[in-house]
Amino acid sequence: MQYQAPVNDMMFLLKDVFNIQSKFAGIEDFSEFDEDLYAAILEEAGKFSSGVLQPINQSGDEEGCRWNDGIVTTPKGFKEAYQAFVEGGWQSLTASPEFGGQGLPKALHVLVEEMFYSTNTSFCLYGSLTAGAYHLLQAHADEQMKAKYLPNMISGQWSGSMCLTEAHAGSDLGLLKSKAEPQADGSYKISGSKIFITGGEHDMAENIIHLVLARLPDAPAGPKGISLFLVPKFMVNDDGTLGERNGIKCGSIEHKMGIKASSTCVMNMDEAVGYLVGGVHQGLRCMFTMMNLERLSIGIQGIGLGEMAYQQADAYANDRLQGRATDGQAPAPIIKHGDVQRMLMSMQAYNQAGRALAVWLGSYLDIAHHSADHAEVQKANAMAALLTPIAKAFFTDMGYEVCTTGQQCFGGHGYVKEWGMEQHVRDARIAQIYEGTNGIQALDLVGRKLVANDGAYIDLLLEEVAQDMQNFADSELKSTLQNKLSELKELSQAIINKGKTDHDLQQWIACDYLHYVALVIYAYLWLKMFNKSYEKQTLGEFFYKRLLPRTLALKASIENQLA
Amino acid sequence: MQYQAPVNDMMFLLKDVFNIQSKFAGIEDFSEFDEDLYAAILEEAGKFSSGVLQPINQSGDEEGCRWNDGIVTTPKGFKEAYQAFVEGGWQSLTASPEFGGQGLPKALHVLVEEMFYSTNTSFCLYGSLTAGAYHLLQAHADEQMKAKYLPNMISGQWSGSMCLTEAHAGSDLGLLKSKAEPQADGSYKISGSKIFITGGEHDMAENIIHLVLARLPDAPAGPKGISLFLVPKFMVNDDGTLGERNGIKCGSIEHKMGIKASSTCVMNMDEAVGYLVGGVHQGLRCMFTMMNLERLSIGIQGIGLGEMAYQQADAYANDRLQGRATDGQAPAPIIKHGDVQRMLMSMQAYNQAGRALAVWLGSYLDIAHHSADHAEVQKANAMAALLTPIAKAFFTDMGYEVCTTGQQCFGGHGYVKEWGMEQHVRDARIAQIYEGTNGIQALDLVGRKLVANDGAYIDLLLEEVAQDMQNFADSELKSTLQNKLSELKELSQAIINKGKTDHDLQQWIACDYLHYVALVIYAYLWLKMFNKSYEKQTLGEFFYKRLLPRTLALKASIENQLA
Repeated sequence: MQYQAPVNDMMFLLKDVFNIQSKFAGIEDFSEFDEDLYAAILEEAGKFSSGVLQPINQSGDEEGCRWNDGIVTTPKGFKEAYQAFVEGGWQSLTASPEFGGQGLPKALHVLVEEMFYSTNTSFCLYGSLTAGAYHLLQAHADEQMKAKYLPNMISGQWSGSMCLTEAHAGSDLGLLKSKAEPQADGSYKISGSKIFITGGEHDMAENIIHLVLARLPDAPAGPKGISLFLVPKFMVNDDGTLGERNGIKCGSIEHKMGIKASSTCVMNMDEAVGYLVGGVHQGLRCMFTMMNLERLSIGIQGIGLGEMAYQQADAYANDRLQGRATDGQAPAPIIKHGDVQRMLMSMQAYNQAGRALAVWLGSYLDIAHHSADHAEVQKANAMAALLTPIAKAFFTDMGYEVCTTGQQCFGGHGYVKEWGMEQHVRDARIAQIYEGTNGIQALDLVGRKLVANDGAYIDLLLEEVAQDMQNFADSELKSTLQNKLSELKELSQAIINKGKTDHDLQQWIACDYLHYVALVIYAYLWLKMFNKSYEKQTLGEFFYKRLLPRTLALKASIENQLA
Repeated sequence: MQYQAPVNDMMFLLKDVFNIQSKFAGIEDFSEFDEDLYAAILEEAGKFSSGVLQPINQSGDEEGCRWNDGIVTTPKGFKEAYQAFVEGGWQSLTASPEFGGQGLPKALHVLVEEMFYSTNTSFCLYGSLTAGAYHLLQAHADEQMKAKYLPNMISGQWSGSMCLTEAHAGSDLGLLKSKAEPQADGSYKISGSKIFITGGEHDMAENIIHLVLARLPDAPAGPKGISLFLVPKFMVNDDGTLGERNGIKCGSIEHKMGIKASSTCVMNMDEAVGYLVGGVHQGLRCMFTMMNLERLSIGIQGIGLGEMAYQQADAYANDRLQGRATDGQAPAPIIKHGDVQRMLMSMQAYNQAGRALAVWLGSYLDIAHHSADHAEVQKANAMAALLTPIAKAFFTDMGYEVCTTGQQCFGGHGYVKEWGMEQHVRDARIAQIYEGTNGIQALDLVGRKLVANDGAYIDLLLEEVAQDMQNFADSELKSTLQNKLSELKELSQAIINKGKTDHDLQQWIACDYLHYVALVIYAYLWLKMFNKSYEKQTLGEFFYKRLLPRTLALKASIENQLA
């Protein structure tokens, strides 16, 4: 079935739920944007998604990327789609206008990203990595480097890659061994081997700008001795033309469970020419500044695939005749069966709350990067720091669950390739692993974002929510939510008290705590949506009745571990 | 890594936990078997699994089955492995000695099946379908048919298939349309098309005996007008030699998410010669008699793959150095991290309780089929009826979860094909769908096994458990379990009260109820194991602390729906 971009639902979030225009009222950079523009962009993104990306999604999975002697060929139609992607300006939405970007809010971009992930996750990743790379250069490169590389990366004419992981250094980048030798001309010669490099090599862009972590000869051991380098695939002459092929080559590509049209490369560097970005030994610090954006993007992969799985499962359930409904005799569409309705509503309830959190978090990132009000920026940074690991991990855990549920609605037809449901599950699975496994996200949440600051971020969240809830009408759900928020406060405090001196304990409860916080936030967002639209009330009530009870299990599990 | 058959753990269940020898003391058919024999068989099954089946598991996935003009070729090595399987007598373990079978208990066979599913699920399915077919013939065929077909099926020289599903008739077999025309000689001509036929065609056995559901011309509409037919691939002459090719052909095979070395066939019948099995219009009734066996077998697929995923994840976690443990400075094996330990213990806790339930349920099936004590048989049949849908659905839901968790332990390496973890997830996924989706299992549990008999089976379960618990030492866990059992009783009664007149409500809570009951049963089995071995206490406590709390969420979700 053809993807139906949920533009109305997205605009409902931007306008009615988050009132983005008034939220951004004081931000000069966004002063020329309005809701009509956002709606027009979403409409166009929807057309691009269903018209260009979706038609090559299943064929891309079947064909996959091919490697031959260092050359990676993307599946049929990808080159043309990439050209259309560049021409449509989709690579440059949130980039700085100074270098040709459109400077649009992240709160809008998350919705465009969702559509692209819905219709072609593999394709979407190339652009997502390029955006990550150019945002990093925007933040840390010097002016000369920016002028030389940014315009072509922002347009999409050149793509980007992030070369972090090595075979023995994944979650723990401090272990990495790639070496950078300083040269007389101020450049470096980089040698080493990287694995799992998304978009490290492909045939869609003229050049690829790699951002590579490596160690200088005198670097201290561990995470504080890592520097960041720009390593172009083709050298770039001063006049902007392409020069020689640099010594960074794709040694092979991985054969994976899914995202088969996204190249996952081994990148071998043999005295490749590189240029330092940011200060010496500042590599991980530089990386961290773009990590929120990348983690949110990968989170949205979960929502996007979940939405696509929902749309297909809903259509199938309305079409497939099987069994009698409890109120009739003739074979009924399976959507008449309560168990199927329960599955479909669960999918929707997670997808829609996830989308709301993505917009909410996106708006904090916008304020953090664009507001002139220092206090607002500080608050937004704190909220983004807290919400990012939650969004990345919970969106993707639920994305996998939602895709699996959608597949289940299809019965045996969900297991064969033809209907496309099993591909969503395979494509969704990676999002729980890369960009920091969900276990790592949970440790980040409990360690850095909760215990390390004595719950300051959680307190801020609770304040923000309490303030907003003053606008909610009194109701049973509101009381339920208020209780959950008190519980969250108490549980968080208990973890801080015990976890402060017991890092091992933090590990044991981290994943459960992340899911717990996420569900409470989803409950808040459901009530917020519920208060703005009668249409959302059935789903909102379903979430409170059937899904929010998961918090009971998580809380008990954590408390038993703390006891 | 090489699979390590958990023979000690299996013998611990047979001997210490269930005391199988005394349980079967009054059963004449088992009088010549003893624990030494069981241990010897498990040892041999373990060697066969790691030596013959595991080496062709990953290559079988890569190569898959191939179809060409009606011929299905299995992957390299499968033919030879099948020959060894037949020669080893593995096909005939539980078959009737009257026709060459070994007549061993199901309580033993579930453990052998687990090993085979662990090491090569695709391969194991061929034999599992054959066993299903011969058990059905043992129960319903006339003596002449038994004599003609059973010995070769039981030896494995011929294989079997179950031809039920049609494109428009899956969960609802009442909708099926295949036709059977009576012939003057007492045979039938069968025409129609079947889909999703596991092992419907392949190149490993001399002949394939298909059991086909079809309608006679005068058959009433719906499920009561379906008859069962034996349709051989090659006609069998009276002297036992093979005759002409029959008109049942494989039209194509499915391209699937996993179990790629298991052929999933479209079977087209064009006036194929068939023979009635059981009475006219008795097809579904005949099928039901073997359904418990098949459903349990598919459930065990979940446990088997979960065990394999656990063994690999455990080995990897002990080997992979990444991050510092909370108590040290140098890179530590990731098993030192609490989050990884939590994952591994969850996997084990589900696998081991599942294995215990498989043995327990297997022993009820043995008593039902072999005991001379009528009251015991009745009780065993009731327990098997209750436990089968729970085992099938919960084993496979947890199997998928456990395999996914195992994959997560590998980080990015879990997502690439090389390590084999992603194959387990893909192979495990089908078990939640076929042999009746897990939603159908849950409806069976709530509809037929709970509401329809006013909770008689649940009461029986509670009695059996209460009686056994008299032997358990008092402890905090025992009190917890007693509370859970009281809650189970109350919750079940509430469902009966409301669900009696509200079938739609049954649908809405069925899956949650199934998981709830399963977790309470696992809690009982953990305490039972806990009481028999100090080694099990850490895992048992972990189950009670961290996993049993899931019942809180399920109970609240159900109660909210009932409210």
